[in-house]
Amino acid sequence: MQEYGCGCDCSSKTELMLAKAIGAVGDDIMFSSNDTPIDEFKMCNDLGGIINLDDITHIEMVEKACGKLPRKMSCRYNPGGVFVLTNGIMDNPGDAKYGMTKEQIFEAYTLMKQKGVEEFGLHAFLASNTVTNEYYPELAKVLFELAVEIKDKTGVKISFINLSGGVGIPYTPDGVPNDIAKIGEGVHKVFDEVLVPNGLGDVSLCTELGRYMMGPYGALVTTVINEKHTHKEYVGVDACAVNLMRPAIYGAYHHITVLGKENEPCDNTYDVTGSLCENCDKFAIDRKLPKIELGDIIYIHDAGAHGFSMGYNYNGKLKSAELLLKENGDVQLIRRAETPKDYFSTFDCFDIYSKLVEE
Amino acid sequence: MQEYGCGCDCSSKTELMLAKAIGAVGDDIMFSSNDTPIDEFKMCNDLGGIINLDDITHIEMVEKACGKLPRKMSCRYNPGGVFVLTNGIMDNPGDAKYGMTKEQIFEAYTLMKQKGVEEFGLHAFLASNTVTNEYYPELAKVLFELAVEIKDKTGVKISFINLSGGVGIPYTPDGVPNDIAKIGEGVHKVFDEVLVPNGLGDVSLCTELGRYMMGPYGALVTTVINEKHTHKEYVGVDACAVNLMRPAIYGAYHHITVLGKENEPCDNTYDVTGSLCENCDKFAIDRKLPKIELGDIIYIHDAGAHGFSMGYNYNGKLKSAELLLKENGDVQLIRRAETPKDYFSTFDCFDIYSKLVEE
Repeated sequence: MQEYGCGCDCSSKTELMLAKAIGAVGDDIMFSSNDTPIDEFKMCNDLGGIINLDDITHIEMVEKACGKLPRKMSCRYNPGGVFVLTNGIMDNPGDAKYGMTKEQIFEAYTLMKQKGVEEFGLHAFLASNTVTNEYYPELAKVLFELAVEIKDKTGVKISFINLSGGVGIPYTPDGVPNDIAKIGEGVHKVFDEVLVPNGLGDVSLCTELGRYMMGPYGALVTTVINEKHTHKEYVGVDACAVNLMRPAIYGAYHHITVLGKENEPCDNTYDVTGSLCENCDKFAIDRKLPKIELGDIIYIHDAGAHGFSMGYNYNGKLKSAELLLKENGDVQLIRRAETPKDYFSTFDCFDIYSKLVEE
Repeated sequence: MQEYGCGCDCSSKTELMLAKAIGAVGDDIMFSSNDTPIDEFKMCNDLGGIINLDDITHIEMVEKACGKLPRKMSCRYNPGGVFVLTNGIMDNPGDAKYGMTKEQIFEAYTLMKQKGVEEFGLHAFLASNTVTNEYYPELAKVLFELAVEIKDKTGVKISFINLSGGVGIPYTPDGVPNDIAKIGEGVHKVFDEVLVPNGLGDVSLCTELGRYMMGPYGALVTTVINEKHTHKEYVGVDACAVNLMRPAIYGAYHHITVLGKENEPCDNTYDVTGSLCENCDKFAIDRKLPKIELGDIIYIHDAGAHGFSMGYNYNGKLKSAELLLKENGDVQLIRRAETPKDYFSTFDCFDIYSKLVEE
């Protein structure tokens, strides 16, 4: 992703460490963290990354952490209330823990300017996984108008605006995906209407489109190891919610393809289950699929975002490896599978450890 | 727990490894796993543990894994339909992926007997976290009557019955906890009424009361590191859903005490938030609490079950240490905190690793 020009949207120490390890520095790092341990502000600043302040009280914390405020800083905005798109889709920023109110954001920029900050950014995230070309332009309008208001009220000129995420993907096969070019045009139009006539035509834009860019291009590939005919028809696979939690915790739909049976009729109804001692650990419920046999390989779609990274070790289950399929058909290991030794690592200072890891 | 006579309820390879490491063998291990990799059956059998079959098809798998069936085996029952307690509480075993139908369980015992199994157990789990003294006796009645039916229909004499879990705890402070002695009496009464007159008075009983035994005796202790006054009043702590996921994913109530302020009036309304980039990462929403200041220590109750063990590393957050408070007031480290090195361990075979773990 870095070779394609992407930077790193970080929110924790280890994410900053990952950014550093791949050589990301300066503007290639944006650090957005509510509720932040003070040393993480320092770590971001040492890398030259941009701290995106979640709250006005963080100004003092960053000053304490870094000695003085960095030259370039950003603020996260939360308009409150309910955010309703023209197409009726809504989300509830007023209930979100993130960002500052409008009054606070004016105060924050004024204070930062007094304290020597020279370059200013603006950020907001108002809705998650929207599948509509309207969201991003409407969000942009809110932020662009706010940038004009900030300039008028505080004299601070915003130099970059981060439109954050929220541009989603359709998880069902009949869903109509976002048209990213159309979204771009929509944002451009608002840019020309709002920023340009107000002397802000040189504002640069950033995005955080992780789900849009990664979600559809990752899959959980798993083998059928059990068939069960009880009060329902079950197929059990060798993956579980540990590898992909969204179906278990959100009841999220992830499309399933049985490899090699793409053209067979979907005339069987299955629950596709994992092995956790949680009944919610099902990748699909009452799903119409081709007749499945032991050993069949099941491809669970759209696991490239909120998949592995959200994984846990419930019931002591270990995480799988991750493989990269290249354009030329080669497959490259990009993360090895967990071993029991990894799982037991935080016992390594106890006597029991030698008994846990002995062969 | 082992010193108090408890055994190990295992469902995965690493849980069997933990059992082995503490010296649990034989009847002290019960292995209940739906959707099981075949080598885990062998591992359980090598430890002399009791395999609790989730499905009739597992008989063949266990035979394949272990050469022949073990001398002692158990089956998990699922009555299907809806399980309604006399007090109206209900759960839905018919939608659960676990266990065998009644017809299958008769067939399974007959088959296992033919194949040389000598000792037989029975297990079922019909409802989760019940806070009523009725559940366990009613579950016992179902299983005891089934044991009689199994004897009559197949000639197989059940020697132990595992009543599993489901005896819960009240998470709210005004909830009336289960009366475990009364529950015991209730089970005893059904035992005398059903098993004894049918020549099954020597059946032994097991339980899996993890939540009941551990839940209330663990807490998540965390420090207030942020205060925020935006569209709501927020206090941010240095823990997050990584340490306790139930509030985030189930909206579960966990009681909160601000240490040292137990007697102050709860006249402030807060959202108590963690630091994840997920708005559901809140330990409490609109909770009435005493006035909270930075540095206050917050005690989140009933985190002794489904707490640490359900933890994940979302946003690269690291898991905390675990401490044991002893009767004499001493505190003992029983698990060390995760480090970035632990978190990055599955990159240890890649060039990037040296850059990740360098100081």
